[in-house]
Amino acid sequence: MNNSAPIGVFDSGVGGLTVVREIMRQIPNERIVYFGDTARVPYGSKSKETVTRYSRQIIRFLKTQDVKAIVAACNTASAYALDEIEQEMDIPVIGVVKPGARVALDATRNGKIGVIGTEATINSQIYERYIKEHDANAEVIGKACPLFVPLVEEGLLNDPVTDEIAMRYLSGLIDSGIDTLVLGCTHYPLIRETVGRVMGAGVTLVNPAYETARELRGMLEAERMLNETKPELGTNRYRFFVSDAADKFIRFANSIIKYGILSAKLIHIEEY
Amino acid sequence: MNNSAPIGVFDSGVGGLTVVREIMRQIPNERIVYFGDTARVPYGSKSKETVTRYSRQIIRFLKTQDVKAIVAACNTASAYALDEIEQEMDIPVIGVVKPGARVALDATRNGKIGVIGTEATINSQIYERYIKEHDANAEVIGKACPLFVPLVEEGLLNDPVTDEIAMRYLSGLIDSGIDTLVLGCTHYPLIRETVGRVMGAGVTLVNPAYETARELRGMLEAERMLNETKPELGTNRYRFFVSDAADKFIRFANSIIKYGILSAKLIHIEEY
Repeated sequence: MNNSAPIGVFDSGVGGLTVVREIMRQIPNERIVYFGDTARVPYGSKSKETVTRYSRQIIRFLKTQDVKAIVAACNTASAYALDEIEQEMDIPVIGVVKPGARVALDATRNGKIGVIGTEATINSQIYERYIKEHDANAEVIGKACPLFVPLVEEGLLNDPVTDEIAMRYLSGLIDSGIDTLVLGCTHYPLIRETVGRVMGAGVTLVNPAYETARELRGMLEAERMLNETKPELGTNRYRFFVSDAADKFIRFANSIIKYGILSAKLIHIEEY
Repeated sequence: MNNSAPIGVFDSGVGGLTVVREIMRQIPNERIVYFGDTARVPYGSKSKETVTRYSRQIIRFLKTQDVKAIVAACNTASAYALDEIEQEMDIPVIGVVKPGARVALDATRNGKIGVIGTEATINSQIYERYIKEHDANAEVIGKACPLFVPLVEEGLLNDPVTDEIAMRYLSGLIDSGIDTLVLGCTHYPLIRETVGRVMGAGVTLVNPAYETARELRGMLEAERMLNETKPELGTNRYRFFVSDAADKFIRFANSIIKYGILSAKLIHIEEY
């Protein structure tokens, strides 16, 4: 495998761009091929079987782009599909859940960790499983927040309605005395301020995106797979693919990432 | 074609069951095969090309069930896909938009009609087009309400948050002086009370589901396709298919329809 090959990153839609942003910052030499499944978004209310089938199709597509490693930048896909898919792969695959669980364990002082995410991620109890593998005494309290994604996609990032919904979703977590809260969905960093305000200064918010990029960097270093030279702009450093509505994706992407995204190619993902 | 063949009804998910409910009431002799595309819901934020491709797959599936007519019980699919698909079909296809537009014209006194729906339905301007075909002087004001579907799916049918969001979406329509408002998404009849309260008693709410069932009945009568005898229960009178999460579908369906829905069969719709 060529070290100058790109990293494949995928998500159900645009949320995974918060992970791309971190990879761009932390390992700027790497090329990236991103796929956002905008035709079938959201994944968070779908079944394990469907999310796994979709993830497999996406990985087949990313492999046609000769990627050297894959990041599942979607908590739902990481939660439902990764264990199975990792075993089938001949290149490294990294999810966002294990890195997120690890930072949460580093951050907590009282051993009480909250996790917010989609219905799928919370029902899978995967954060709890990973956290308890490392610390059997840790207490993990999960809470699904299904309206957060549509509120973010509607742009209500700082809004009394988002505050009110956050109060309802999070009040049980406040009462439980957690000191650390994992933002277990790639959309949630975009309402970090609201969540932080509701939870109060005593609770550390964990964004798995940062730690995922760090894990990716560490893995590439360990495997001697880092790209040594920075690709020139215009040499396909970053490429974006979606399954629907490329124009809308480009607008949203440019609000998240500073690198100017000029195009996103539409593909029929069900053909992979 | 056998008159005892079923009617095929489809929607992006569960919303179309509000149309099924009307068909069950108005033409109880008819068998129904319902398909809800729960793996790819929602359609309202997707492109015309994708919604048309998905609708074609669904129709191919419904035809394997030997349906005698098809109802697109989804405003987005009716808006984006129906004109094209109607021309390719050898059995009648009915959407919800034309019937909705017709009732709105019957209901209005001042000729000012509001339409609320998904981004896709509103951007397509299809209600405006149909209404103006019948009355060039009518004024049609559309407003996309993208948060209504997730609010309904979260069960916030009577809730201050839904009131607040409704106030924001609808205040422009109130100011415009409309006297009739089309509920241009099959989820919206479920928050009819909230919308009615916000709009006030002077505005007539139009639910296209009722008129769609009436149009279906009229068409079957005219074409001598009505089923003359009521099928026994247990003879597959109503059958439900979904592309994901059948259990969740059954729970939601039973909250909308009185007929006890015991099973929904999972199919891989992308194979059609």
